[in-house]
This record gives sequence, C-alpha cells and structure tokens, in this order.
Amino acid sequence: MPRITAQEVYQICEESLPWAGIMGFEITDIGKGTCRVRMPRKDEFLRPGGTVNGPALMSLADYAMYVAVLSAIGRVEMAVTTSLNCNFLRRPKAGAVIADCRLLKLGKRLAYGEVSLYTEGAEADGPVAHVTATYSIPPARDGG
Amino acid sequence: MPRITAQEVYQICEESLPWAGIMGFEITDIGKGTCRVRMPRKDEFLRPGGTVNGPALMSLADYAMYVAVLSAIGRVEMAVTTSLNCNFLRRPKAGAVIADCRLLKLGKRLAYGEVSLYTEGAEADGPVAHVTATYSIPPARDGG
Amino acid sequence: MPRITAQEVYQICEESLPWAGIMGFEITDIGKGTCRVRMPRKDEFLRPGGTVNGPALMSLADYAMYVAVLSAIGRVEMAVTTSLNCNFLRRPKAGAVIADCRLLKLGKRLAYGEVSLYTEGAEADGPVAHVTATYSIPPARDGG
Amino acid sequence: MPRITAQEVYQICEESLPWAGIMGFEITDIGKGTCRVRMPRKDEFLRPGGTVNGPALMSLADYAMYVAVLSAIGRVEMAVTTSLNCNFLRRPKAGAVIADCRLLKLGKRLAYGEVSLYTEGAEADGPVAHVTATYSIPPARDGG
Repeated sequence: MPRITAQEVYQICEESLPWAGIMGFEITDIGKGTCRVRMPRKDEFLRPGGTVNGPALMSLADYAMYVAVLSAIGRVEMAVTTSLNCNFLRRPKAGAVIADCRLLKLGKRLAYGEVSLYTEGAEADGPVAHVTATYSIPPARDGG
Repeated sequence: MPRITAQEVYQICEESLPWAGIMGFEITDIGKGTCRVRMPRKDEFLRPGGTVNGPALMSLADYAMYVAVLSAIGRVEMAVTTSLNCNFLRRPKAGAVIADCRLLKLGKRLAYGEVSLYTEGAEADGPVAHVTATYSIPPARDGG
Repeated sequence: MPRITAQEVYQICEESLPWAGIMGFEITDIGKGTCRVRMPRKDEFLRPGGTVNGPALMSLADYAMYVAVLSAIGRVEMAVTTSLNCNFLRRPKAGAVIADCRLLKLGKRLAYGEVSLYTEGAEADGPVAHVTATYSIPPARDGG
Repeated sequence: MPRITAQEVYQICEESLPWAGIMGFEITDIGKGTCRVRMPRKDEFLRPGGTVNGPALMSLADYAMYVAVLSAIGRVEMAVTTSLNCNFLRRPKAGAVIADCRLLKLGKRLAYGEVSLYTEGAEADGPVAHVTATYSIPPARDGG
C-alpha cells in the first residue's frame, strides 16, 4: 500500500509545486516505492526534429521519483533531489511519454531509484531515456 | 569568436524550440565554446520550501550546453543531449539563476561540457548546482 | 545465445586486459546482452571500515558491462566505456561481490546498460551499488 | 593550508587502504580542498588498444577526491564515496596519468568535487577523462 495517494500528491502540487500542473503530469499508477506517471503531448515540449525535448523528459523523471519517494515515506514535501543522471537512448516520438519508476534503496536520509521513460504506444521500442536519481529526505518528517 | 550569435539562437528557438521562450532564457554572454545564460525568477519554478525546482535548473543547464555547442560548431540545430548529470549542491534562493557553461571537449561527433549554476546576486555562496552533459553532433552539418 | 563465450572473454583478457585477471573476475552466467560476474574477496580491496573499496566495485561493474556488450555483438575488443555513473547504496561486507548486468539499449555505435552489485550471500539486503554505463562500439567489427 | 599532509594520507593507506599502494598513487601537490595525484604507467593498467583502462582512471579519480576531502576536513578515514560519474573524453596514451582535483562544495555531511585526468606530458591535448564525485562525511569526526 502506498503511503500517499495520487490525490494527495496533486494537492501538494496545487499548493506548492505549480510546475507539475503546467507540465500536465498524471499519476496513472502508484505502489509503495513505485509509480507510473504520464506526460501528455504538448507543442511546448517539441524541439528541432519534432521530438520531445530533454528537459521535459528530465522533469517527468524527477516528478516520478518524487511521487515514488512520497509513496514510500508519506507526505514529506521537503524531500529534494540531490542528484539526477539522465541517459537519452532513443529519439522519442512527438507524443505522450510514460515514466515507470521504482526505488532501489530507501534509507532514512536518502532514497535512490531509477526511471524508464517510453513513448506511449511505442513501449516495445524500448526506453527513450533512463534516469537514476537520489533524493534527500529531511530528518523531521511531517507525515508518513 | 563564437560561430553563432545570441540572436541566431533566439531565432532557432522561435522556430523550433518553444521551451526556451517559455522559460525566459536570456543569453548574456557568448564566446567560442562558452556562454552565460540567465533564467529569470518565475513563480512557476518554485517548489516546496520556496526555492527554484530542479527541473528548471536542469532545463537551464541543458540550454546553456546547447548554446555553448552551437557557439563552437555553428548552426547545427539537431545537436542533441545524450546524457546529463546534475548534482544539486545548495538550496537556491527564489530568484534569477545564472548558468556558466564551458565545453571541456569538442570532437567531431560528441561535445562534453560543464555548467555551474548560481543564484543571481549570491554567486559568492558557491554554485547551487553543477551539471555535466554530453551532446551528440550529427554527421551532416548545415552550418558552421 | 550469447555471441561470445566466457572462455573467449578470458582469452581476450589474457592477451590484452591483464586487469581482469588481477581482480579475479569470474563470469558465472552469460546470456545475450546479460551476464553475471563474481569478484572474489581479496584483502587488497578492503578500505577503512573493513568493506570493499569503491574502485573495486566500479572495476567489476565496468567489466560486467564489457562482457554484456561482447555477449551481444561478439568479439569486438575495442569497445570502450564512454561514461560510467556509480551510486554506492549500502556498505558492502568484506566478501565476494556479484554483479548482475543487462543492456537497456544496443545501437550500432552505442550500448547502454545497468549493473546491480550485491554482497555474495547477502543479496536480500539489496544492492550495494548501482551502475549505469555507456560503451562505444567501433565502426569496423572484427567479429560477431 | 591543507588539514592533512601527503605523508599522513600515505600512512592511512598503509594501515587500511592497500589499494592505493598497489596502484602506485603519488600525491604531488596538496592544498585545502585541492590536490594533484600521479598514477605511474603500469602494464597491468593496459587494455586493448594499448591505452590505460577505465577502472584505473576511475580509481585514480576516486583517490584524488579522497585526498582532497581529507585536505579540507582533516583525518576522517571513514569518508566514503556515495556517487561517482566518469566521462571518458580521449584515448589516454600508455603512460602516467595526472589527476587534478578540486572541491566545489564542502558541507557538513557531503563534499562534492571534480577531477580532470591528463596523460602526463600531453596535458595540452586536454583531459582524457572528467569525473565528478560526492563523498559522505561521517558525523563523528576523529580528526581535523
């Protein structure tokens, strides 16, 4: 059972993370330490070549990690990324992107996980990008 | 002498990289393989804690690398990021962010560089983030 | 079916990669684009705290990637690492280490994969380190 | 003034980090948060193509970071790498390698720095590899 619901994440975003709304992120699945997030197709995300730009993909991956961390520890809004490594593997199509995230480690102070990103409907082509990231968990938790 | 001007970069962005305009990136300095880019303060970039969110910082760094690569090879719009590694070092203040970028290697097929990000006006506090990134340069160049 | 056998990899190492012999790497499983490699416990690998040092873990991961790449493309000795990112997740015990590697992308020029490292006999504790790496594949292949 | 001398680092290595001796690392310069380390040419480090293998370069970079961290905080043997990102930029010649390291951040719990690696005598060709790494500093310091 996840320790936070998609609705609770959306509420945090409404209150203090406007970026997620601008990007249109949608949590389509949430487990404990895992999640799937969808980023819709938007013209603003296109780059030369008609594909989705890298920053949009990294934003999606970072958000998916945030959701996965909160799904494991509960409502700790102040969890922050300390490092993120992104490898772009294939040219994404100009469509929606799906992020599959799972934590590989959940410690008291740090969480580490990986995110695989796919063009929606072209998952069989393999991931368009692969991200690993570390989140720092603040000592005083207000939730979970 | 840079092989592209700030105006020419802005023109590429207007035509095919709308993201840069949305973010408000401003090229304040451009050399050959180096540049400085400014990201203004925007409420959309804030995150819990009142600081600038990580994706905005990574977007800025990625754009600065793009500008630095084009400054070295000329107008090659199809240059694409192949990997980006970001380390978040200090909590940025809720203000404008400055990115200083320089290439460490410029090969025929790959460029590699680093970007240091600072809160504008608080440069003396040290970088808020440090990014290294690799760009792939397509074989057929339409410029430079 | 892998396109190279463990014996063939050992032969390359004997001829031109003495490091692998010094480290004592043993290929315990090899598929097509996947492998498992074992690094024995050696006093030389210890570091303050009585654990396995980071360079030994990174060496093991890099070797596992090399084996996985060759398992997918055949005998191409000149495949070289272009980037490697290692996250150390848990203090390894002073014992043998197991590396599980799989490729996430195999292109004509680049291969990308991930490696999870475990203390032998303590796999259930989770990985002690997680590595992602990119290999460059030279254009002229002498095998595969 | 560095908070540790090269001799004191060598003493730690003799007592509990045998790897450094095996590799032949030599500290040729040490400041506060900076250092230069030399790795001699050894046949054991060669790889197909007659160049220095990646693990030897990463070992050198990791050691240089360790020395730079100790130069800033004093004798804290239990400082450990938490992440290391290496980009291989040019084929090194089969010679000695020089590592130039500097810290970009020194916090209470984390240090972050970068290392540029050069073939000795071919520094003008540019770095053969560039490394960024994070070290975790244990809370109870026994020195410094």
